[in-house]
Amino acid sequence: MSEHKPLNIGMIGYGFMGRAHSNAYCKVGNFFKTKHRPVLRAACGRNEEAVQAFADNWGYESTETDWRALIARDDIDAIDICVPNNLHKEIAIAAAEAGKMILCEKPLSMDVAEGEAMCEAVEKAGVTNMVWYNYRRVPAVTLAKNLIDEGRLGRIFHYRANFLQDWTIAEDVPQGGAALWRLDAAAAGSGVTGDLLAHCIDTALWLNGSIHDVTAMTETFVKERMHNLTGKVEPVGIDDACAFLCHFENGSLGLFESTRYARGHKALYTFEVNGEKGSLRWDLHDLHRLEFFDHADESAVRGWRNVHVTDHGGDHPYMDHWWVPGLQIGYEHSFVHQVADFLGGLDRGENAGPTFRDALETQKVCDAVLESAKTKSWCNIS
Amino acid sequence: MSEHKPLNIGMIGYGFMGRAHSNAYCKVGNFFKTKHRPVLRAACGRNEEAVQAFADNWGYESTETDWRALIARDDIDAIDICVPNNLHKEIAIAAAEAGKMILCEKPLSMDVAEGEAMCEAVEKAGVTNMVWYNYRRVPAVTLAKNLIDEGRLGRIFHYRANFLQDWTIAEDVPQGGAALWRLDAAAAGSGVTGDLLAHCIDTALWLNGSIHDVTAMTETFVKERMHNLTGKVEPVGIDDACAFLCHFENGSLGLFESTRYARGHKALYTFEVNGEKGSLRWDLHDLHRLEFFDHADESAVRGWRNVHVTDHGGDHPYMDHWWVPGLQIGYEHSFVHQVADFLGGLDRGENAGPTFRDALETQKVCDAVLESAKTKSWCNIS
Amino acid sequence: MSEHKPLNIGMIGYGFMGRAHSNAYCKVGNFFKTKHRPVLRAACGRNEEAVQAFADNWGYESTETDWRALIARDDIDAIDICVPNNLHKEIAIAAAEAGKMILCEKPLSMDVAEGEAMCEAVEKAGVTNMVWYNYRRVPAVTLAKNLIDEGRLGRIFHYRANFLQDWTIAEDVPQGGAALWRLDAAAAGSGVTGDLLAHCIDTALWLNGSIHDVTAMTETFVKERMHNLTGKVEPVGIDDACAFLCHFENGSLGLFESTRYARGHKALYTFEVNGEKGSLRWDLHDLHRLEFFDHADESAVRGWRNVHVTDHGGDHPYMDHWWVPGLQIGYEHSFVHQVADFLGGLDRGENAGPTFRDALETQKVCDAVLESAKTKSWCNIS
Amino acid sequence: MSEHKPLNIGMIGYGFMGRAHSNAYCKVGNFFKTKHRPVLRAACGRNEEAVQAFADNWGYESTETDWRALIARDDIDAIDICVPNNLHKEIAIAAAEAGKMILCEKPLSMDVAEGEAMCEAVEKAGVTNMVWYNYRRVPAVTLAKNLIDEGRLGRIFHYRANFLQDWTIAEDVPQGGAALWRLDAAAAGSGVTGDLLAHCIDTALWLNGSIHDVTAMTETFVKERMHNLTGKVEPVGIDDACAFLCHFENGSLGLFESTRYARGHKALYTFEVNGEKGSLRWDLHDLHRLEFFDHADESAVRGWRNVHVTDHGGDHPYMDHWWVPGLQIGYEHSFVHQVADFLGGLDRGENAGPTFRDALETQKVCDAVLESAKTKSWCNIS
Repeated sequence: MSEHKPLNIGMIGYGFMGRAHSNAYCKVGNFFKTKHRPVLRAACGRNEEAVQAFADNWGYESTETDWRALIARDDIDAIDICVPNNLHKEIAIAAAEAGKMILCEKPLSMDVAEGEAMCEAVEKAGVTNMVWYNYRRVPAVTLAKNLIDEGRLGRIFHYRANFLQDWTIAEDVPQGGAALWRLDAAAAGSGVTGDLLAHCIDTALWLNGSIHDVTAMTETFVKERMHNLTGKVEPVGIDDACAFLCHFENGSLGLFESTRYARGHKALYTFEVNGEKGSLRWDLHDLHRLEFFDHADESAVRGWRNVHVTDHGGDHPYMDHWWVPGLQIGYEHSFVHQVADFLGGLDRGENAGPTFRDALETQKVCDAVLESAKTKSWCNIS
Repeated sequence: MSEHKPLNIGMIGYGFMGRAHSNAYCKVGNFFKTKHRPVLRAACGRNEEAVQAFADNWGYESTETDWRALIARDDIDAIDICVPNNLHKEIAIAAAEAGKMILCEKPLSMDVAEGEAMCEAVEKAGVTNMVWYNYRRVPAVTLAKNLIDEGRLGRIFHYRANFLQDWTIAEDVPQGGAALWRLDAAAAGSGVTGDLLAHCIDTALWLNGSIHDVTAMTETFVKERMHNLTGKVEPVGIDDACAFLCHFENGSLGLFESTRYARGHKALYTFEVNGEKGSLRWDLHDLHRLEFFDHADESAVRGWRNVHVTDHGGDHPYMDHWWVPGLQIGYEHSFVHQVADFLGGLDRGENAGPTFRDALETQKVCDAVLESAKTKSWCNIS
Repeated sequence: MSEHKPLNIGMIGYGFMGRAHSNAYCKVGNFFKTKHRPVLRAACGRNEEAVQAFADNWGYESTETDWRALIARDDIDAIDICVPNNLHKEIAIAAAEAGKMILCEKPLSMDVAEGEAMCEAVEKAGVTNMVWYNYRRVPAVTLAKNLIDEGRLGRIFHYRANFLQDWTIAEDVPQGGAALWRLDAAAAGSGVTGDLLAHCIDTALWLNGSIHDVTAMTETFVKERMHNLTGKVEPVGIDDACAFLCHFENGSLGLFESTRYARGHKALYTFEVNGEKGSLRWDLHDLHRLEFFDHADESAVRGWRNVHVTDHGGDHPYMDHWWVPGLQIGYEHSFVHQVADFLGGLDRGENAGPTFRDALETQKVCDAVLESAKTKSWCNIS
Repeated sequence: MSEHKPLNIGMIGYGFMGRAHSNAYCKVGNFFKTKHRPVLRAACGRNEEAVQAFADNWGYESTETDWRALIARDDIDAIDICVPNNLHKEIAIAAAEAGKMILCEKPLSMDVAEGEAMCEAVEKAGVTNMVWYNYRRVPAVTLAKNLIDEGRLGRIFHYRANFLQDWTIAEDVPQGGAALWRLDAAAAGSGVTGDLLAHCIDTALWLNGSIHDVTAMTETFVKERMHNLTGKVEPVGIDDACAFLCHFENGSLGLFESTRYARGHKALYTFEVNGEKGSLRWDLHDLHRLEFFDHADESAVRGWRNVHVTDHGGDHPYMDHWWVPGLQIGYEHSFVHQVADFLGGLDRGENAGPTFRDALETQKVCDAVLESAKTKSWCNIS
């Protein structure tokens, strides 16, 4: 194994995403033959006991309780930012200035201004950077990208996506702190827009190009919730639901919706693209499948094809590395693929993406959506 | 059979809807035990040969080539209007003034002003009136209505519907005349908004109450098409696609879309309603099924239920009249049910609906949608 | 309409099938342009009041209470047999001897011996004859037939079918009389074998050719039920469930199952055919769909195609006669198609089939299946 | 981490299953908090270079090329047998005699006689033993087990399962050696019976109890294939397809089928259980879902529930250890769960199962199935 080049990871945060990324770092070398390989050098978190337990669990060699100390360490090559959105900017800029590579959780930032500053910092420092829009690396989604890029759909007319959840319907779900920071506007910046729609927008920009303008609406169904940090019932500052219409630059129409009040849906991210020659559909609840309609099929037997994206031989992205046809992989594998691509990029001296700059485009749409909802008017993406 | 009360029908038009309605009139008595029964007294159309063939096929006793002559006949109780939208108003008002009952195809009219005039005419004349928003009478849709009215979904958060087709993608589809009048703005008034979204809106208003305001966009993907009436390539005046966001009066959010450019979908009308306690989904391509999610189900085995709406014993609306559980009915049966309800209404001296006045509400939303798309602003439903 | 040639129908029986056939006779002329057209001349049943009500409902011109009297009438061209299985033979032979055409409900007979006698009678008399294996005329099933005959599946390896119901699980369902004669061995001959498997076998023989041998098992889960005719609890003589394995003459393997104890299935008739080049699947609960897998599809986007069998232009059998693409027909339409084909056969002087002789092949398999279950051994189809 | 008790693994074989098990050993500690933890002590295979590469990939500390040497090592606690079926017996007995725990791939053995000897060996030695029937630990399958054990289905009437593949249809697929030993009767013992049906049978016995008797048929569609070990075209000794009917001891009927000639299916293991009160369905192509029909549901909204088995809070077996609701796991996780249960068993001094003795029951059914197919008669399970 001496031929491998270590990528020394300093992980900040130890929540859901900290786990998902750590698992990806642990597994990637068993399945992907990159030269660079992650080494779990240090985990960082404010709670010393908790971060130690996390480090023990995943095999991080050391811990830190101050992210500045982590960034200052010479034995760290890359900083992985898995903390609430309001901390991304400061950490990322400090890490860039220290010459560290950065793998930052999505959304990039609280707003476009923060995101611009982050982009400038990494570009000035010339450090490799990536944002964890992991769904691009679900094999069925990558296959969709390949089909569109090959022109299999022809001219695109429609793009629609939604991300439906139902976990905050109960009024006694509190906001703020630990696992619930996503309900706290101060920590999250926005509600479903930054959390869920950001995923939909990233995929859409990747598959269908830039968005020109949007008209949006947001809603907060439960107006007050107990706040875990203050111990008091506080107004809810986030959007519980958000929907928008848009025009893409390629002339197609877009329809996006996200909510945490769609009873019956746990994490149903779906998209559908309709083109002149064909159409595609995907959803996260059955992420190993892609539906494809090919108008060129003989008319008598034309229908939506349900593709079980588990084949070998190069047909289905990433799947040669896993099991055998018919045996599905799951959610966590999207992170493994993203790490594998990141490492492969390092091997070739490239930035695998999505970069901070890519993620800034999503941030621009998110900001325009929130602005449109506030002003009740169409807003252009600058 | 002497105990039956005849409802003497005068049918105007002999296209797709003329067939669908005639079939309903022929079948209803075999399956529903109303006192009133339709009698196919006369069919009317401008082309004498064509209307005679139509009359022969369905058993109409006579024909007319001038709708005014039909309305003038004493042996006609009810006028069925199955002609392009631009003729609805004049015929309906004349029929009302002649004291005829009216069964009018949807959408009610070219715009709200026309619709208002039509409502005033039928109300002034005191004639029974109905608009053929037939999807209300698909058993699964009626079941959805019943479940919502029973409070099974609780507070409603979201309503989304779309109606997706793909039959006008080819640029060499002409516009105007005969079967293609729906592509001609002069005859249809609008494109998918009046043709398809009107169905979605009617169902939505019925299931979820009034809409307060909308923001919309429309698009015409193919800008010019050969016009069958002029023989020249003419600008296309209709909307090929239309989408809108809205607020319902009950505080829920709506998302609607319709297009004839969604490759792979023939006539995919779908709706989904998300409430605090449960959710419902339906689609026209499998119209005999209703999906239902009940949050009260035990958590370990909670999931969307796929209800095959073919049971007897009163469980599934209208189905006692048909075959046995498991054996599906189809599209045409929605018209049979609408006729059965209309006749039942006559038996009881009631107007079964949807009435002209009900349909005017849909027209108001359609007009606001088109206005919003034109002005790029939110528009209130007056 | 004077150019039409009347086919004067004498209907015997007025149950579920009597309704389904009558509906088909009433509708066929509105949708299919055959020269011969059914005329509902007389309905026959032992209960005078009931048969009169039935005749009134469907427009039969007269009634009889003795089927021999019906057969004796000169104004009747064709006898439709819709009575329990134990009466088929006697009526059919008498009708044949009277020179009447015969449309007989399935299964053909109580056993092969009866069926042989019936075949001989109709062939000796030279009368047109047909058995109501209506599922052949579901458009998706006819399409399956066409695809197989075109060689689209290549060499066939597997055929599997089942017909699952759940309506007799409750022990208090009685047997015998009226709607429940199917649970009475004296009237039905067998249970699910003749009622449900017979459908599966007919389709299989039609699609995949003859069966060589079978091994079967049957079960009667509820051993005693109240008998409606005797008023006493009596042993149940029918098979509640039946399954068998078989070899087809073409070398493919078959697997068949039927039961009325499959909780959750109302009338789920499904079949799947696997060939070297492709596969097909269909089920009765969504009868307007056919699933098709084409191995020749490009590997990256190969998947089961879900074909919504509602297209025009000759692509989808029978569908040109109905509505527009995307709008489904239902169960009853299979009977309309069967009548249309029967009439078209008369126009051309052909026997449209399935004939008594075709249905006898199914009877042979049914008998072998029951024999195999009884003897616990493989049985050849003679 | 010092509190963990090491379980020193000696792995024999490095094919598909060697990878799947190794991955499970690597991951289990990150997600499950057992005291015992696997330590990858040694990997063993005849090809020195290949086994070294395998060991490097997964982090095995050492390698062996002779399994007897591996078994002789004092630093090995447990032997994992991942070699072709014809080697199971000898290795297992030797390992047992050396006092090693054994984790053996399925099927247990070439036949019942071998399996008996293996059971006796492990029982005599008193060593913990397990067979890798991994599908028991798919959360949806475990949930099915729980529901059945709670009596949610009531009396069982029907059990049906099949395992459909299509990867050997091409006649130029060779047999024998490396990845293709499953097509070589000398190495595999049987074809789909031991490879695929064994899984179906194991699950069935677990969910529905013992099988009493069977009638079966087998087929070898391609009679000769190039043999990789001899370099010649040789007769094919395995069964390409196998189907059987059976009676379970509880009175329910079983229907099983497996084939590698079902075009369009990659690894479609499905089962369905029908009981008096409800039914269950599962399939491996969407292994994270369970379908459940509850007859106790209110009749108007009764339907198959599609349960996305990804919830926390104890509702869905194993899922608390993974991500969040809605985010699916995949095939490999079944092995992680099996290791976790094995380790948990060690913690508590129990044998988690399925044990050799459990697996012998499956072997008895397999043998009876093959015997029945050969003799064309019903065979009892001894």
